[in-house]
Amino acid sequence: MKLLIGDKNYSSWSMRPWLLFKHFGIPVEEVLIHLNEPGTKSAILAHAPTGPGKVPCLIGDDGSATWDSLAIAETLAERFPQHALWPRDPAARSHARSVSAEMHSGFGDLRSNMWMNIRASFPGKNATPGVLADIARIEAIWSQCLATHGGPFLFGEFGIVDAMYAPVVMRFNTWQPSLSETAAAYVRRVTALPAVKAWIDNALRETHTAPYLDECP
Amino acid sequence: MKLLIGDKNYSSWSMRPWLLFKHFGIPVEEVLIHLNEPGTKSAILAHAPTGPGKVPCLIGDDGSATWDSLAIAETLAERFPQHALWPRDPAARSHARSVSAEMHSGFGDLRSNMWMNIRASFPGKNATPGVLADIARIEAIWSQCLATHGGPFLFGEFGIVDAMYAPVVMRFNTWQPSLSETAAAYVRRVTALPAVKAWIDNALRETHTAPYLDECP
Repeated sequence: MKLLIGDKNYSSWSMRPWLLFKHFGIPVEEVLIHLNEPGTKSAILAHAPTGPGKVPCLIGDDGSATWDSLAIAETLAERFPQHALWPRDPAARSHARSVSAEMHSGFGDLRSNMWMNIRASFPGKNATPGVLADIARIEAIWSQCLATHGGPFLFGEFGIVDAMYAPVVMRFNTWQPSLSETAAAYVRRVTALPAVKAWIDNALRETHTAPYLDECP
Repeated sequence: MKLLIGDKNYSSWSMRPWLLFKHFGIPVEEVLIHLNEPGTKSAILAHAPTGPGKVPCLIGDDGSATWDSLAIAETLAERFPQHALWPRDPAARSHARSVSAEMHSGFGDLRSNMWMNIRASFPGKNATPGVLADIARIEAIWSQCLATHGGPFLFGEFGIVDAMYAPVVMRFNTWQPSLSETAAAYVRRVTALPAVKAWIDNALRETHTAPYLDECP
């Protein structure tokens, strides 16, 4: 299998499946395609002509493409049942899918105002009312999951839900909004996870840049 | 089980799981909550305090809440394996999840400019370049799925993918953008499906309105 990803510094959607492969030790060949270049989309389409020309995209040994972070996560959960990618308990799994899907389709204010840029530091910037409402909802989700399942990750051990929220953790490290102690401690735990540390270390060493994401007006 | 939904005329996200229950004959009690009212969110939260206060939301017999159309669909697929909610073939299922997730998180231009309003007719309006790009991608997805699996629905028989795109079919009926014959024929087939017809008939008889969605500037 091959996993097409974007620059690790910027590609929040790519980070999610990459973490799942890394954390669970599932072998995959990584293909990094620089974002924000004239040839970016055609380079992705060359690997996956039926997809939308976006990363992440998983290419099977038969050439078939699975795109979108959540579809890749569900596919991995199905193909590697020996790993608890979703919680084993059905009720917890429905809850996990709910908060994963909520992240997948929502939080537009946070996404557009506090983009992922691991190398950058923009403390206190862009905390609009819409962003603060998104952050309040994320804190409510995290504190409820941690209280219900006892931590250290949202449903106990690290899994798909944490991977879905890992780019938010990166955003919080960059933009440093004020957070509850519960949320701040979860941010520290995710940041310290070996797979997350490996992604961050790779991002810090990248040299390709997307200048429009490096400046905060 | 109870399924919380919004007004059938407007609530595109609610339509998806409702169609799955209806088409596959899975019993559920329907609870309709009027959208765009001061008490809308608190009425939803009264049923599902841990959710985001949005529809659709599935309430289990134990009171547990599963929210978001895609999370509800995955949960149904898991709990009712006797129904082919997803394609039975693993490769087709990965592809089905990819195009479902792509719809779930994308097509923002189409969503915001051609909202769902089943009773309305706004032919030729709001066809911005971004909307046309979204429609072109949807037509590419549909024609590829129909060609690969032979129709009549995207992966053969009606399933989650068709339910995910059913609100788009409603938008196309209202806004009437120009479509390829392949896409137009798919729109007609989805519109004629008994479960979809039942939703439309209910929408046509509703009297509650959201005035800001009834006018096209």
